[in-house]
Amino acid sequence: MIGDATTSAASGMAPGGPVLDPVALLAEIDDVGRAAGGGWSRLVHTDAERTLRDWFTEHATRLGLDVEEDRNGNLWAWWGGDLPGADAPGAVLQVGSHLDSVPAGGAYDGPLGVVTALAAVSRLRAEAFTPHRPVVVPVFAEEEGGRFGIACAGSRLMTGALDPVRAGALADPDGTTAADAARRVGADPTAWGPDPVRVARIGEAVELHVEQGHLPTSGGCRHGAMGLAEAGAPLGLLTEIWPHGRWRFDLVGEPNHAGTTPLDRRVDPMLALAEGVLAARRAAERHGVLATVGKVRVDPGAVNAIPSAATFWLDARGADPAAVDAAVADIAAALGAAPVRESWTPVTRFDAGLGARLAGPVRAALTAAGAPTGTDGQPLLPTLPSGAGHDAGVLAEAGVPTAMLVVRNPSGISHAPGEHAEDGDVRLGAAALVEIIRDRADAGWQG
Amino acid sequence: MIGDATTSAASGMAPGGPVLDPVALLAEIDDVGRAAGGGWSRLVHTDAERTLRDWFTEHATRLGLDVEEDRNGNLWAWWGGDLPGADAPGAVLQVGSHLDSVPAGGAYDGPLGVVTALAAVSRLRAEAFTPHRPVVVPVFAEEEGGRFGIACAGSRLMTGALDPVRAGALADPDGTTAADAARRVGADPTAWGPDPVRVARIGEAVELHVEQGHLPTSGGCRHGAMGLAEAGAPLGLLTEIWPHGRWRFDLVGEPNHAGTTPLDRRVDPMLALAEGVLAARRAAERHGVLATVGKVRVDPGAVNAIPSAATFWLDARGADPAAVDAAVADIAAALGAAPVRESWTPVTRFDAGLGARLAGPVRAALTAAGAPTGTDGQPLLPTLPSGAGHDAGVLAEAGVPTAMLVVRNPSGISHAPGEHAEDGDVRLGAAALVEIIRDRADAGWQG
Repeated sequence: MIGDATTSAASGMAPGGPVLDPVALLAEIDDVGRAAGGGWSRLVHTDAERTLRDWFTEHATRLGLDVEEDRNGNLWAWWGGDLPGADAPGAVLQVGSHLDSVPAGGAYDGPLGVVTALAAVSRLRAEAFTPHRPVVVPVFAEEEGGRFGIACAGSRLMTGALDPVRAGALADPDGTTAADAARRVGADPTAWGPDPVRVARIGEAVELHVEQGHLPTSGGCRHGAMGLAEAGAPLGLLTEIWPHGRWRFDLVGEPNHAGTTPLDRRVDPMLALAEGVLAARRAAERHGVLATVGKVRVDPGAVNAIPSAATFWLDARGADPAAVDAAVADIAAALGAAPVRESWTPVTRFDAGLGARLAGPVRAALTAAGAPTGTDGQPLLPTLPSGAGHDAGVLAEAGVPTAMLVVRNPSGISHAPGEHAEDGDVRLGAAALVEIIRDRADAGWQG
Repeated sequence: MIGDATTSAASGMAPGGPVLDPVALLAEIDDVGRAAGGGWSRLVHTDAERTLRDWFTEHATRLGLDVEEDRNGNLWAWWGGDLPGADAPGAVLQVGSHLDSVPAGGAYDGPLGVVTALAAVSRLRAEAFTPHRPVVVPVFAEEEGGRFGIACAGSRLMTGALDPVRAGALADPDGTTAADAARRVGADPTAWGPDPVRVARIGEAVELHVEQGHLPTSGGCRHGAMGLAEAGAPLGLLTEIWPHGRWRFDLVGEPNHAGTTPLDRRVDPMLALAEGVLAARRAAERHGVLATVGKVRVDPGAVNAIPSAATFWLDARGADPAAVDAAVADIAAALGAAPVRESWTPVTRFDAGLGARLAGPVRAALTAAGAPTGTDGQPLLPTLPSGAGHDAGVLAEAGVPTAMLVVRNPSGISHAPGEHAEDGDVRLGAAALVEIIRDRADAGWQG
C-alpha cells in the first residue's frame, strides 16, 4: 500500500527528496477500513486504524521525520525536534490532525489534515527549507469517539480534560473497555494522563480539515445554509466551535408479550422514544439550534416483545448555549423524563491573532493558484463557525494559540461516504500549509 | 442442578418410581440462563439452552423414557414407543412444549409445558399405569425465534412449513447463521427438513402453556382485557390463535454530520422511524388490533451522525385479519413506505373435538382439587383465544388434532421476567395432564 505518492516526474524529485502529493496519499489508503455498507470504518485500535498509523509512520520516517508515540497514544512526527530551544514553552509549530473515523464515515475527515501536512513538509524539505523552530505533525488518537463514545480522547487525555480512569472504563458496543482494547494492541493504559510539558511546548497549532456541512460563513445569515461552495472560495478559516453536548434519555417500560397485551395495559418505552425523537426536531426548529438522535438502544429488542427499556442519545449544538439548553429542556418536558448530560463543551474560540497571522500566507497560496478574488482584489478567504468539535478545539481550551483551515466540501456531507473535496482544493490546502510553515517557522518566527 | 424434584416423602415414592414435582423441577433450572438485566435468556444453541436439553434428557431417562433427537433438533422422550401399532398413523399421544426463551424472557413460557408433562408421566408410572398407545414428551427447538427470528423453527421444519435452506441462512444479531450455530453444537443442518412419517404418527397433541396476557375469555368482551384471573379459573382451553404477522420497514436517509447539517437539508430516517412507531399505535387503536414495535436497527448508530438508514419491525395481530391488514396499510400510508412482510399466519383453530374430549379429564382434576365451580356446579374451564403463536398451532396447521391447556397467569405478563404462575396452579396443570393421559392412553383410546 505504501507508494511513492510523488507528484509528476517534472516536479516530483526536488533537491531535498521526494515531494508527496496529498491526493496520491489519500489514494494509497482508500482501501483501508472500507465498511461493508459503504464508507470507511477506522475505529481506534482496530486493524484498519493500526494500518493507517503504521502507514503514517513509514511515510514520515522516509521524509526524515522522527516519529514517537506519546503516553496517550498520539503519534508525533518531528522536524527539527532537536533544534536549540526546541523544548522551550511555545517553541513548537504543530500542523496535523487525526486518522480515525466514525463508523461508515467519509475519507477526508482527519486524513486530509494529515496528508496535506506530510505533503507540505515534503515540499519544504525538497526545497531545502530550514525550519527555525520544531515543526511537528501529530496524529491524535480516537478523535471521533467512534468506538468508545468520547470524542478527542487522545488530545483530551493529553491536556487533562479527560480523566484517564474514566477513559479506560469506557466500553465499545461489544463490551470491550478502552483499556483492554489498548492493551491488546500493546499500549499501556496505566500511562494515560496529562502531559503538560508537551502541551506547553506547542506555540501555534494549525489543523487543516475538510469543511463539514454548510453553516453560515462570515457573510451569511445566521441560520441559513451557506458554505465555501456557495461563497466560491476553496479555503476558509474557522472562528469558533459552537457549544455542543450529548444527553442520554433512559426510558423504562413494562416488558410484555406483543401478541397478548391489550393496548391500554401497555407501558411501551418505544412510544416514548418516538415522541422524544420528534420532540427533539420540534425543539431544534423552535430554538434555532441543531438536535439529532443518531443512536438508540432498545432492550431486549425482540420483534414480539414490548421493550423493557429504550434509550436514545441527543446531540444538540448551536451558536447560543442558552438556546441549546432551552431545546433540551423542551424535550425533557415533552417526555416527563430527565436526561443524563454525558458531555458539554462551551463555545471554543480560535486564536484571532494567529488567524490574522495565517491569512497572509494562505492568501499567498491562493493568489499563486489563481483562486477567485473579492471586490477588494484579494483572494476570498471566508471565516466561518464550526458545529463540529476538533482536537484543535481541545488545544484551544487548554490555552494553546490555535487555528483551523478548512477545505471546500461541495456536497456539504460529512461523517458519511459522500464527504468530499476536489483534488485541486486538496492540493491548494497543502500549498497553504507550505506557506504557513514557511512563514511561521522562518528565522523571524519569534518576532 | 439435577435434583430429585420429588414430592413429599408421604407421596413421593409410589410403586413404580419417583413422582416428580413440577414446581421443584422449575426450581432446578431457575439459575439457567439468567439475563444480566433480569429475566432468562435461553436462546437456541447457547450454553443455557444446551444445559436445559441435557437436564431434560437426564430426567426423562431416569423416568425410563427413551430420548431421541430428530433430524430437526427436536427432542422426543418416549413412553411405550415400542408398543404394537406404535408406528401407525395417529397412534401417538403427544404432551409437551419447548425450553428456549426470548431474550430476557420469563421462566414459564415453554418450561411449564415440559415440567408438567414430565411430572404427569412420573405420576402415572408411579401408579403403574400402562399406556395403550405411545405417549411422547417433545421439546421443540427454537420455539421463540429469539435468536434467528423465525418462531417455531423446529416444528415448522418438521411439518415442512419452513424451508431448511432458508432456515439455515437466517443470521443472529452477531451475524452467525443458524446453520453455523447448529454445527458448532454438533448438529447437522443438512439433515433439516420435513418429517412426514413422524407428523403422521401424532394422533393427538396437547400443549400446556402459561397464560399470556389477558385477552377475552369466552364470556368476555371482544377487545377488553379479561383473563383466567378475572374469571376466577386456574385453567382454560384455547380455541384459536389469532392471525398474526411481522413486517419490516426499511427507511433510507442521507447520512451526515449532526453538528454541521442545517435542519432543512436533512433526510433523517430516525424521524421517519419515530413517525412509524406512533402511526402503528394509532392504527392499532383505530382498527382494534395489536401492533408493536419491539425491534429497531439504526445505521451507523453514532451519536453525532444523522443515520444513513433505520429499520423497524412491526408485529401485528388481531381476531380479524382484514383489520390487521388495514392497520398495516395505514402505517405504510403514513410513512409513504412499503413494508416487507416477513411472515404471516392466518387464524389457527384448535381441534374442537379434541377440546371436548379433554374437558372431562381436566374437570376431573379440577374437581379433585376443589377448584371454583360455575352456576352449573361444574368446575370453571373457560375457553379463550391466543394472540401468541405456538408449536401446537404449527401442528394444527399440518392437520394434527391439537389442543392447548393454559394455566392462570395473575400478572398478565409474558415474555418478560414478571411472567408468573402460582405453585398450586402449576401442580393443578400437571394433575390435569395426568387425567388427560390416563383418559387418552387407556385401553379404549381408539373407541
